[in-house]
Amino acid sequence: MFARKDLLGIRDLTADEITHLLDVAESFRDISQREIKKVPALRGRTVINLFFEPSTRTRTSFEIAAKRLSADTINISASSSSVVKGETLLDTARNLEAMAPDLLVIRHPSAGAPHMLARICRAGVINAGDGANEHPTQALLDALTIRQHKGRIAGLKVAIIGDILHSRVARSNAYLLTKLGAEVRLTGPGPLVPEAFGALTEGGLRLERNVERALEGADVIIVLRIQRERQDAAFFPSLREYAVYYGLNLKRLERTAPDSIVMHPGPINRGIEIASEVADGSRSLILDQVANGLAVRMAVLYLLLGGGVSSHGDETARPPVSAVADERRA
Amino acid sequence: MFARKDLLGIRDLTADEITHLLDVAESFRDISQREIKKVPALRGRTVINLFFEPSTRTRTSFEIAAKRLSADTINISASSSSVVKGETLLDTARNLEAMAPDLLVIRHPSAGAPHMLARICRAGVINAGDGANEHPTQALLDALTIRQHKGRIAGLKVAIIGDILHSRVARSNAYLLTKLGAEVRLTGPGPLVPEAFGALTEGGLRLERNVERALEGADVIIVLRIQRERQDAAFFPSLREYAVYYGLNLKRLERTAPDSIVMHPGPINRGIEIASEVADGSRSLILDQVANGLAVRMAVLYLLLGGGVSSHGDETARPPVSAVADERRA
Amino acid sequence: MFARKDLLGIRDLTADEITHLLDVAESFRDISQREIKKVPALRGRTVINLFFEPSTRTRTSFEIAAKRLSADTINISASSSSVVKGETLLDTARNLEAMAPDLLVIRHPSAGAPHMLARICRAGVINAGDGANEHPTQALLDALTIRQHKGRIAGLKVAIIGDILHSRVARSNAYLLTKLGAEVRLTGPGPLVPEAFGALTEGGLRLERNVERALEGADVIIVLRIQRERQDAAFFPSLREYAVYYGLNLKRLERTAPDSIVMHPGPINRGIEIASEVADGSRSLILDQVANGLAVRMAVLYLLLGGGVSSHGDETARPPVSAVADERRA
Repeated sequence: MFARKDLLGIRDLTADEITHLLDVAESFRDISQREIKKVPALRGRTVINLFFEPSTRTRTSFEIAAKRLSADTINISASSSSVVKGETLLDTARNLEAMAPDLLVIRHPSAGAPHMLARICRAGVINAGDGANEHPTQALLDALTIRQHKGRIAGLKVAIIGDILHSRVARSNAYLLTKLGAEVRLTGPGPLVPEAFGALTEGGLRLERNVERALEGADVIIVLRIQRERQDAAFFPSLREYAVYYGLNLKRLERTAPDSIVMHPGPINRGIEIASEVADGSRSLILDQVANGLAVRMAVLYLLLGGGVSSHGDETARPPVSAVADERRA
Repeated sequence: MFARKDLLGIRDLTADEITHLLDVAESFRDISQREIKKVPALRGRTVINLFFEPSTRTRTSFEIAAKRLSADTINISASSSSVVKGETLLDTARNLEAMAPDLLVIRHPSAGAPHMLARICRAGVINAGDGANEHPTQALLDALTIRQHKGRIAGLKVAIIGDILHSRVARSNAYLLTKLGAEVRLTGPGPLVPEAFGALTEGGLRLERNVERALEGADVIIVLRIQRERQDAAFFPSLREYAVYYGLNLKRLERTAPDSIVMHPGPINRGIEIASEVADGSRSLILDQVANGLAVRMAVLYLLLGGGVSSHGDETARPPVSAVADERRA
Repeated sequence: MFARKDLLGIRDLTADEITHLLDVAESFRDISQREIKKVPALRGRTVINLFFEPSTRTRTSFEIAAKRLSADTINISASSSSVVKGETLLDTARNLEAMAPDLLVIRHPSAGAPHMLARICRAGVINAGDGANEHPTQALLDALTIRQHKGRIAGLKVAIIGDILHSRVARSNAYLLTKLGAEVRLTGPGPLVPEAFGALTEGGLRLERNVERALEGADVIIVLRIQRERQDAAFFPSLREYAVYYGLNLKRLERTAPDSIVMHPGPINRGIEIASEVADGSRSLILDQVANGLAVRMAVLYLLLGGGVSSHGDETARPPVSAVADERRA
């Protein structure tokens, strides 16, 4: 069902693979609610978190996920790494590889960096965000959250609002949601919703310059984070104006379906891309997304390291019962 | 005996609760002297160290304490955190909470930050220092050290010398020592020993502008660290003069009780608030404090996570025998 | 066979001790090739990595080594440490010691820093690089790599090229290789290969100003990294000229023995001290060195913490069979 060495993006995955990943993630969700939040599934495995961009939540989420599966984790951040000594990414990767890790989780400002690593490493590689390309575990956790609250993904109307152009979250979500049969509407300031984006998927994707029309009857609204550090490029006049014209507030929310749900990859800029009343409101699933992120990352770590494939090579579609058994019994 | 979710300060604790914490800490002291320095008490629990101020010793002490109890630990420091991305502390906390940690250990420059977290989190919160407010585990380790060497706390004369005004260590110690019946004398440069401080506790506290009088017959002397970074405020003319007028040297030590003991929260500024002859002398318990800090933090982690309360909800005053059993037998 | 508390340098070791260390390292090499890369040998032990200079590979190597032996690891880097608060190294060490670690792994810009720590600490101390003095685990991993590919060390001709003057790698290798009977030739720009270096060992060492002569018939070539940060001192005109006159390229490699091997401590500066064709060529063992580094560090951690010495105090020369037993059986 999922016999890959790496998770580099959603683009390469089949709908079946995505669904299997979500099913396994669901079976892992329960572990973090136990008193003993740990299963022995990946005992003796080494996971290296290699972050070339700062990130609290994604790094922490992968680290906790690995620890709850009993793997050993090593954190390497760009500031402390040999990168300052002028080593190439390829040499860094080869050197880490020589220490026989089982998985490398990489975040890098350049699109394609994880793919390059995956080609040269025997270890599995997980893309935790590469430039403006993909952020597959974010799309998976978004899908898990939608499925949890809507029961399905096919047929839903999903609006994604914000800086589509620079967003790896938008790209990975566009791939995933259209593959599973949703209708995806991308909206935001003109220069940030480029025509070229429409060609990304085979169908189900619509560029919509008018934010109110994009929200009309939407079942799911994914609000993207405004990257303040990119403001110099002047894609829109000011944060204040962005809030007025594109921020998701209670008034805009009225245009959506009566039972619509609101998501955001975090960290949120209150009062800019999302009003506090919306972020803290009953439709907001922002914290569910974080909890589901942990389950998705546990599932990805587990599946890439051979979970669901028995030691005899037989694949099994059953939930990983032994993997999620309470440690006390293990 | 200790049925709290959080440890936010000494101010809220009863004398009985403090005594129970010290008793449990005593039973944990021995673990770090074993060859196998580990017990399975908190296996499968997640402890997040969230430090918004740099600290080697406190962070390391909590991390080692958690590991010796077999908990999983995650370190988050301000520089690497989403704080740089403009997220509020509340949102950071909510997001961490969504990953289902069992305990958050927080150090923050703002007084009250841990209390705010404690209100919104199901996870327990430990205050590892909040602005000039409290540093409860420091006061507990100081008390454990005094008890170890003096056999009691009630009736002792304790002098605290230094920048009382800005010191969370002084505040937590003033609360704890007066609750347990000691006579506490606060002394230091005039502007740093404000009148208002005298109202902190219900009794047993004395402001004493004259440092020599404060030391007269003292059984315990707690020397506070001079925060060099606060010197700009010009509360005293120079480090040199501070050393001359307030530094604890051998001559000043003569005024204290013949069997007096000297403590300091560290890191020490040699030759400024404490002379090397005193810091390295036979009365100095500075390193005992560090060792006791580990035991106190193990006790706090253990008790907040339900230690001493059986799974049937019955409380027990017995020492945590099973918790401290050697891992080999576990 | 190896009954020391500390590993401070190669200089103090006997040839027998070195050979025993290499033998034990060999028996550990296999662990990192297993699916479950973990043995319970150091369960319940605490290893503190105390790095006062940035380093990805050495810190990561020690951290993974400790984790694969089931030890708990704590990372402390200079930037986050109390050093910024003006504490002396001695006080930092005494304080860490009070937390009862079993081993301190230290990297420090000052030669002799690990030796000072070793004198005051009950815990074992491992020198992970002290100024321009020694880097013993690097020399051990180099020797392990040579032995693996050449079957012996005695009688081999080893050329070390580069900034000999400032290189702790060159010093530790000069000590080790001459102790085991190799002929070592040191070469590089004149000011960087000082006469005084010739007196380091009792024999087998030769200073050779002419790089081509140093390479003549060499069995092993160890290329040192050019420390770009030291260029200001103007020991040589430019990186470009360094590459031309001292860089190891295919042409220079022709002068060496037909089955010569090439090593480099990393990270490499491609096109400066080593040409890419050589670094990526069939004679390059740079990644073998990294893998062997892990095995060497596991062996050092294991031996310093009493491995090979039974609980009854009997020494044993047998390979640490029980230590390397698969965790599943443990």
